[in-house]
Amino acid sequence: MSTGVDGGSQAQRVGRPRATPGAVGGLTPREQILDASAALFAEHGYAGTSTRAIAEQVGIRQASLYYHFAGKDDILLELLETSVRPSLAFVDVLLAHEDAAAALYALASIDVATLLATPHNIGTLYLAHEVQQPRFDSFRAQRAQLQDAYSALVGSLAQDPDFLGTCCIQLVEMVITLRRDGNVHDSTASRIALACLHVLGLPASVVERAAAAGAELLATLEAEA
Amino acid sequence: MSTGVDGGSQAQRVGRPRATPGAVGGLTPREQILDASAALFAEHGYAGTSTRAIAEQVGIRQASLYYHFAGKDDILLELLETSVRPSLAFVDVLLAHEDAAAALYALASIDVATLLATPHNIGTLYLAHEVQQPRFDSFRAQRAQLQDAYSALVGSLAQDPDFLGTCCIQLVEMVITLRRDGNVHDSTASRIALACLHVLGLPASVVERAAAAGAELLATLEAEA
Repeated sequence: MSTGVDGGSQAQRVGRPRATPGAVGGLTPREQILDASAALFAEHGYAGTSTRAIAEQVGIRQASLYYHFAGKDDILLELLETSVRPSLAFVDVLLAHEDAAAALYALASIDVATLLATPHNIGTLYLAHEVQQPRFDSFRAQRAQLQDAYSALVGSLAQDPDFLGTCCIQLVEMVITLRRDGNVHDSTASRIALACLHVLGLPASVVERAAAAGAELLATLEAEA
Repeated sequence: MSTGVDGGSQAQRVGRPRATPGAVGGLTPREQILDASAALFAEHGYAGTSTRAIAEQVGIRQASLYYHFAGKDDILLELLETSVRPSLAFVDVLLAHEDAAAALYALASIDVATLLATPHNIGTLYLAHEVQQPRFDSFRAQRAQLQDAYSALVGSLAQDPDFLGTCCIQLVEMVITLRRDGNVHDSTASRIALACLHVLGLPASVVERAAAAGAELLATLEAEA
């Protein structure tokens, strides 16, 4: 799994914006714009990508692009939010779960899956200077909410929940570089989730039990979703 | 500690490139160029910074800048290498050390210190798309060497050394976001080094002993340096 490969065929599709088989089959025009933008941001950076280039890549006019999005910022904001929102949807039920260690395991697993599902590994832009600007406040607020959820779960399990919650998020985001480098495997999510339990310094027996319970909780949540 | 503050006063110093007190006191012209470039890259991104802007910030002519560096790439390469080279200098002695867990603790501590010493938190550019390009191969090769050192140390302590070595590097690089967000404290390096031992799933007694031995080893290495 790697950035920039799965959207590569779009350049040949200028003028045929939808309802075609292949890479973008089944995507709405809005989704096509997001996908093409993510591919261009990954390859040329955010600053190096114009709305004109995005429109060309999708095979639409710039005016059509502005029908869907207010501008490039608005596209990046939406992309960044897709890297957090699906995980946030599970936070309430996980925070209410009686077994915090199992819930932490499940949250980390879900969060890895969310990052793996982002178009063209958009998490590579997390450290971009643009993302620090006020116009991306709502993304950073959502990310802070997710961080708070990690800290809250860690708080029932170990001292120093803010620091260790940040360690967990950091371990989860390891999947961004693993994906970029083509090092994602079937077991990646479960190994990262396990690493989150270990980093808290819990005894091996507790980690083992929590990982099993967490995997079960995850299966239940996935069945319900 | 935060990015972009410590280099802010340079803008007023146009035409007075050196031997003045204050922010850049004691820096060679080459170091001044590196410092100003890092500040501009952090604020405007790599693509958004010109060699002209760098020369203006330092208060020198562009021709003088090209006397020290072949161009912007060359400056970024040098900056990226300052985030790895000081840690690499310790790798041989740490790999030869009899106590791998103590050596891992020391390596993580040294590596955090290296990242804290980079001009304007240059590690924020690690994920930038430019850094993936061939002209930065030598930086990526050095970083791979560092990664190999983590994996080699982990290999004597736990299964799955590549994955867990990557976990350790990822935990160390947490200091990049902590620094950006102004969350670095005196204990940050030791807490991250401890997290690296915990993430391997070692028993608490082993971690405790290794952290003490690692702190001692670190003190010895610092005294020798």
